[in-house]
Amino acid sequence: MRRTICFNNKPVIIGASSIAGPKESEGSIGKFIETTLNDDMYGEDTFEKAESKMLFTAIKKAVDNAHKKEDEIDAIIAGDLLNQIIASTFAARNFPSAYLGIYNACATFAESLTIGAMLIDGKYMNNVVCSASSHFSSAERQYRYPLELGCTRPPQAQWTVTGAGSTVIGAKGSGPKITSATIGKVVDYGVVDANNMGAAMAPAAADTLITHFRESNCAPCDYDLIVTGDLGTLGSRILKDLSWEKGYDIEKQHVDCGELIYNLCESEYQGGSGAGCSAVVFNSYLMERLRENKLKKIAFMATGALLSSVSSQQGDSIPGIAHLVVVES
Amino acid sequence: MRRTICFNNKPVIIGASSIAGPKESEGSIGKFIETTLNDDMYGEDTFEKAESKMLFTAIKKAVDNAHKKEDEIDAIIAGDLLNQIIASTFAARNFPSAYLGIYNACATFAESLTIGAMLIDGKYMNNVVCSASSHFSSAERQYRYPLELGCTRPPQAQWTVTGAGSTVIGAKGSGPKITSATIGKVVDYGVVDANNMGAAMAPAAADTLITHFRESNCAPCDYDLIVTGDLGTLGSRILKDLSWEKGYDIEKQHVDCGELIYNLCESEYQGGSGAGCSAVVFNSYLMERLRENKLKKIAFMATGALLSSVSSQQGDSIPGIAHLVVVES
Repeated sequence: MRRTICFNNKPVIIGASSIAGPKESEGSIGKFIETTLNDDMYGEDTFEKAESKMLFTAIKKAVDNAHKKEDEIDAIIAGDLLNQIIASTFAARNFPSAYLGIYNACATFAESLTIGAMLIDGKYMNNVVCSASSHFSSAERQYRYPLELGCTRPPQAQWTVTGAGSTVIGAKGSGPKITSATIGKVVDYGVVDANNMGAAMAPAAADTLITHFRESNCAPCDYDLIVTGDLGTLGSRILKDLSWEKGYDIEKQHVDCGELIYNLCESEYQGGSGAGCSAVVFNSYLMERLRENKLKKIAFMATGALLSSVSSQQGDSIPGIAHLVVVES
Repeated sequence: MRRTICFNNKPVIIGASSIAGPKESEGSIGKFIETTLNDDMYGEDTFEKAESKMLFTAIKKAVDNAHKKEDEIDAIIAGDLLNQIIASTFAARNFPSAYLGIYNACATFAESLTIGAMLIDGKYMNNVVCSASSHFSSAERQYRYPLELGCTRPPQAQWTVTGAGSTVIGAKGSGPKITSATIGKVVDYGVVDANNMGAAMAPAAADTLITHFRESNCAPCDYDLIVTGDLGTLGSRILKDLSWEKGYDIEKQHVDCGELIYNLCESEYQGGSGAGCSAVVFNSYLMERLRENKLKKIAFMATGALLSSVSSQQGDSIPGIAHLVVVES
């Protein structure tokens, strides 16, 4: 069994775009985000429609940025946190491309990059778009409580990012390259606190990262950055501890998109989360640094907590998953 | 833009397994189903857990039937109809393999075969499992009404199949081969009746089928069967009409898994539906006929209605999608 795959034809990231809500746009990476919104309703009458419109905009602008026409995009691979991933489906409805819907919670964006890179590397397609989104208000009312209740958030909670990111991967062109990927497996350490996603996801992140190091004969020092999706402050500490126990010290290289995206202040506690979190950070800050050659090689690992409100209510624990993609400038 | 991909290395179906509830087991293809249940709770205390256990059993038996050990399976690609695809996630938790969660409603199983065939054809992996499931009672209470309400079903309604199917695809071995696939796009003709899935999905099925014929220079007569997922009686008629309008008469070759799976009686009206419908029929009846060489070449096209209860309540129409996979004995 082997979970790491190499892309010998080195698929190229030829375009990217990010869009985010007001809170994210004021955060520490806000200036790198292409489209910033003043209103998280984005002119729509529901949060779900606003999320879908964000994803649509991110796809459209990424395709423009790649200097491609819509009918040159062979497939869209996308997912989000909404039941039946309706944000992605209704965004994809507006494009003529093939559509593969995927779901691995907040690890969705890395999953889409993995499948997208395979479609290009295997010469099955010429240009594909990989996307993911989330919206604080649509996620909150679906997973937790109606916003109108005004529930207090516990200190281990994270804040779902309102945003979307899209990446265009092509067979030809210039840009950062996707060179390998390690697909995650479902890991469950028995965490049952649906407010403590970081702790639920960290063991899966450690499993994927260590599997990646072993299968590709690499060490943390081979990377300029090891970027996790949305472990938050607590989850990041657990990942570092678990990796250290296995002999890998990632302290110097590790950053977390959830920790990066906001100006740390009290209301978000552990930082950002959501499928849009890593998608926004990847398609704004990270892409810019890769293009400028300030980052030469990164391991980008989005992490997901695979619960539903039904599984939690039925007493099940929260399995985690993490998919890792290596991107080189 | 091109949506059809060819698998030159011809990935082989080396194992398959199906499992279904009491109603399906008594249906017209019941004798081909490997594991038949007397009780749709399958020893669990909730319908959702029963669905996940069915999927687990289908994966486990498919791996056994392929004469593989669990640790020889590189990846599981699976999805289902439950919010956050928990049936798949909690089934995958019990295996050491990598996991890719996917969602395209009832087209999920064909999507998993497409991605799985790519993973093998591209030499990224050696053995993968492709799976999907659905459960009448978990779907009904999630998408429509609590079962306890005893709502009357309208005549255009279908019956969600309680069942799961798994296919093991390998690089080596003997068995039917997956030779090409046409990935569907999202098609929306504006149907808003959530009880009339057949009408919502038929235009997507016609789009994929005609795209497949054109891109691979084929005609209906090149196939022994053109199998749709779960269009039901009404949806099948619409597909045949739409294809005929474009110059393709599929009357002789077409069968629908939804029409096949039950003994047609009044209570199911249009026939079966659900991600498990095509997965069960493919991994029982169709696999047996392919192995016996009674079917030489089939186009297997699962169809999905990409709605959620939220999108319906917000007045959105129901987009459809269909993915097509060509299997040759």
